[in-house]
Amino acid sequence: MDRTLTLSFSCPDASGIVAAVSSFVAQHKGWITEASQHTEHELGRFFMRMEIKASSLDFPPEAFGPHFSPLAQQFGLEWTLSDSDQPRRVVLLCSKQEHCLYDLLARQVSQDFRFIVPCVVSNHEAHRKVVEAHGIPFHYVPVTPENKHAAYRRMEQIFRDEKADLIVLARYMQVLDEELCRNFAGKIINIHHSFLPSFAGAKPYHQAHRRGVKLIGATCHFVTPELDEGPIVEQDVIRVDHSDTPDDMVQLGKDIEKVVLARGLRAVVEDRVLLAGHKTVVFR
Amino acid sequence: MDRTLTLSFSCPDASGIVAAVSSFVAQHKGWITEASQHTEHELGRFFMRMEIKASSLDFPPEAFGPHFSPLAQQFGLEWTLSDSDQPRRVVLLCSKQEHCLYDLLARQVSQDFRFIVPCVVSNHEAHRKVVEAHGIPFHYVPVTPENKHAAYRRMEQIFRDEKADLIVLARYMQVLDEELCRNFAGKIINIHHSFLPSFAGAKPYHQAHRRGVKLIGATCHFVTPELDEGPIVEQDVIRVDHSDTPDDMVQLGKDIEKVVLARGLRAVVEDRVLLAGHKTVVFR
Amino acid sequence: MDRTLTLSFSCPDASGIVAAVSSFVAQHKGWITEASQHTEHELGRFFMRMEIKASSLDFPPEAFGPHFSPLAQQFGLEWTLSDSDQPRRVVLLCSKQEHCLYDLLARQVSQDFRFIVPCVVSNHEAHRKVVEAHGIPFHYVPVTPENKHAAYRRMEQIFRDEKADLIVLARYMQVLDEELCRNFAGKIINIHHSFLPSFAGAKPYHQAHRRGVKLIGATCHFVTPELDEGPIVEQDVIRVDHSDTPDDMVQLGKDIEKVVLARGLRAVVEDRVLLAGHKTVVFR
Amino acid sequence: MDRTLTLSFSCPDASGIVAAVSSFVAQHKGWITEASQHTEHELGRFFMRMEIKASSLDFPPEAFGPHFSPLAQQFGLEWTLSDSDQPRRVVLLCSKQEHCLYDLLARQVSQDFRFIVPCVVSNHEAHRKVVEAHGIPFHYVPVTPENKHAAYRRMEQIFRDEKADLIVLARYMQVLDEELCRNFAGKIINIHHSFLPSFAGAKPYHQAHRRGVKLIGATCHFVTPELDEGPIVEQDVIRVDHSDTPDDMVQLGKDIEKVVLARGLRAVVEDRVLLAGHKTVVFR
Repeated sequence: MDRTLTLSFSCPDASGIVAAVSSFVAQHKGWITEASQHTEHELGRFFMRMEIKASSLDFPPEAFGPHFSPLAQQFGLEWTLSDSDQPRRVVLLCSKQEHCLYDLLARQVSQDFRFIVPCVVSNHEAHRKVVEAHGIPFHYVPVTPENKHAAYRRMEQIFRDEKADLIVLARYMQVLDEELCRNFAGKIINIHHSFLPSFAGAKPYHQAHRRGVKLIGATCHFVTPELDEGPIVEQDVIRVDHSDTPDDMVQLGKDIEKVVLARGLRAVVEDRVLLAGHKTVVFR
Repeated sequence: MDRTLTLSFSCPDASGIVAAVSSFVAQHKGWITEASQHTEHELGRFFMRMEIKASSLDFPPEAFGPHFSPLAQQFGLEWTLSDSDQPRRVVLLCSKQEHCLYDLLARQVSQDFRFIVPCVVSNHEAHRKVVEAHGIPFHYVPVTPENKHAAYRRMEQIFRDEKADLIVLARYMQVLDEELCRNFAGKIINIHHSFLPSFAGAKPYHQAHRRGVKLIGATCHFVTPELDEGPIVEQDVIRVDHSDTPDDMVQLGKDIEKVVLARGLRAVVEDRVLLAGHKTVVFR
Repeated sequence: MDRTLTLSFSCPDASGIVAAVSSFVAQHKGWITEASQHTEHELGRFFMRMEIKASSLDFPPEAFGPHFSPLAQQFGLEWTLSDSDQPRRVVLLCSKQEHCLYDLLARQVSQDFRFIVPCVVSNHEAHRKVVEAHGIPFHYVPVTPENKHAAYRRMEQIFRDEKADLIVLARYMQVLDEELCRNFAGKIINIHHSFLPSFAGAKPYHQAHRRGVKLIGATCHFVTPELDEGPIVEQDVIRVDHSDTPDDMVQLGKDIEKVVLARGLRAVVEDRVLLAGHKTVVFR
Repeated sequence: MDRTLTLSFSCPDASGIVAAVSSFVAQHKGWITEASQHTEHELGRFFMRMEIKASSLDFPPEAFGPHFSPLAQQFGLEWTLSDSDQPRRVVLLCSKQEHCLYDLLARQVSQDFRFIVPCVVSNHEAHRKVVEAHGIPFHYVPVTPENKHAAYRRMEQIFRDEKADLIVLARYMQVLDEELCRNFAGKIINIHHSFLPSFAGAKPYHQAHRRGVKLIGATCHFVTPELDEGPIVEQDVIRVDHSDTPDDMVQLGKDIEKVVLARGLRAVVEDRVLLAGHKTVVFR
């Protein structure tokens, strides 16, 4: 696979941005292999993402910043550049349920999308063997009402030691504290087992069963201090009927949870997700 | 198509019900072509639906009741029998939006499922011509804050005159009053343009847009005096993304609304829907 | 809605195209509200589509061609420009089945997307009343083995008289002759009632039933002289099971046929569909 | 979970079967918790499946056969009885791709449905560690053009030693020989990475890409000596577009393959799948 630079940015909407940015790339012989744009009218902001063949540019990837900065300043761009040669480091957090963990491990093995799992953190020992069979370190960090604060600080230390770019709650059954949410804002994604905003909070499948809905869902979202209120990245649903008990829904829901989490994570890892207020722009 | 009797019932759960009912049918030479059953454990109730070839029975359809009553009493059955030779009379209510109306008219023309539209009632004149082109009477009943009570009584009169078995709110944009809901309890179905319980009430697509959800939905439900709280019959969703405005969602949602309403109506017309408290059993 | 110009083009792939075209638009103060691009590597061709606010340009829409031609020639662009003030004229062809016809009529009434139906042509009289209730002329053109050639020539005359931009076979049950396919190449779209390439030809639902598939589908494609072989625009499927007879599939399939045809037509009308050999690029 | 007996059978269609079987169960105090039936008219055969609470019967599970046989003979039933206390032994075959293997291992860990994996067989060593981390024996059986016959005989021996009820080709990339297919007829299920009958044979995603389809699919089917022609158990599809390369389709397809295989396996394990000629009846 060719080395690729992915530029994504947002800025106040104005005419000429696309022309300016694509001319900059063209002047430096850059080959744009993919580009997407969007204007969020309520916010008056413009969003763009483009992939550029690194080898086509007339400067090395490290020199992109210095060359691009003047233009970025002119239009007030908030921008990031990522390099396919430096895959994202994604720490996985799990509890007892295995479906999201196994699914992400399988994707890491085959590199469905480019990411590294530097370690797995869990409040249970259940999955140590399988994780270690992949050569991935497994950190057991129990969380109790008493040790909560200390436990989360220890986890933060692990994230920093492992140079985590992203933290994924792969059906991790503890609510992170506000400090952790703030310190890693925009870097933590969760899978909630309902089609938000329906059935936020605890036991969503039981809530769904009580209401008699005909579809159940899952939502991948950024974690913010407000429980289940963060910007939504991806959602999907699956059909149920009157014969499904809450336990059946728990089983059926797993197939949706893991696929929604994986799609959401992939989009984030590939810089397809840009925050727009409390919503997201998700480029395909 | 063969003349078919559809027996559906619910009763307190007990062993031997299926055996008793199917033996009754067998003793009378009845040929069961389809059968479904369900136990609602919370309610301790058993639900069943079966289709029987009318010609196979050793008594005429009219004699089913007298023959079946003793058994029904023994097990405490609440039962209904419907006859494919007497299609349901379904009154359609619409406002300005045309998609559900046209969809149901098309299905009535081709008899996708067996039903008759004895008349259409609307608070707008918009669709008179198309309705009348089908030879179906069109009743214009304007509803204003002042005349509401009188208008709904006039509509009730129309329902009675037309011997309506069912009333379908095909994107009818007025909230029925409590009296009407009570008088026709279990006979009115509505299509709500959200995936309930999310976004009940007014302008659900605008609510969905504000929250940044990645799927929008529609819900077919029985109408009760509590707005958008009635038992759910059918739901479905469709994918949207950041580029869709509320107006785009209104357009996209139409494709889901009409198909969810049609599926829900079909299930009700074919006696596949049994009420179980504030939920439904929907046999396939 | 603002007047919008939609530019779409393809050309041999090269670096600098996006920069050149977007700079051209920017120099003329044009505001790009939507843009999509794609490279078809097998063909070595680049495809692009952009929407421009007409009022933002420093020349009138009519002057786009003269201004743009030099650039278009330089890069070898095959391009079209369409103007939202001149909606596409879409002639509908139908036979006895009503579902696609009604669906498109409803969309035309509410202008789900911008198009005009100048007339409907049918080999049956069945839907004259409903079509005429919309103020749309209805042409009855019977097709028999004997009069086929004459009938298709008469239809071609109607298409020309009505200045048809597109012809839609809305479950039209006759196979167009080669002459008609050639004369209106790239302008005729059909809905086939299977998930092509499975079950091409006659009675696809019966074929599907025989094979015991668990999903049935529909395919919207451009019509070419090779039956059911034209470039595919859109497809979708719906679940069936062992209990569905071929007749049930015919009914269930209607819901997929009409929605797939409508989505395909919408994409074509909005210039989102570009031909790439025997395949299509369909921009969202 | 209660111990459950699942009775499934097929027989020549006749009236009175349901009555006879449910009366038999009722006479022995059996509690039917789930029941489904179907008539395959082309074959003139009737199919039924019922779940019975083992503890409710007035005889032990082992005595079901002797009690039921006379009735079974009278109606010509081909029947099987399975006991939830004796979960199916499912041998997994895999090659290099990991997604189906990991998915089934995860389901086995959490017992999404009741089954045991007595061993995994592979023609590659790739997944030994992960399999053994679960305490499951891993058999490496390389298959080359030269050793094919011997390799398959060795595999048959493993299946017999492990008392395999079912063999699952979890993206196993070798074509089983006819002898193996015959010896384990009705016991081997495969996941094919296309929506059959489209794109049977090798490299289906490349075939799909060439044809320009807008959805790709997967099919779970019984293995017969005719490649990709066995009775279909389950299918599903996922959307692709012009921008997806064959390699992208390979990645995207994995999400459909694993879920279709798992659903198909679950249905088979739960005795929901009955063979009806070259098709299947799949009770929900």
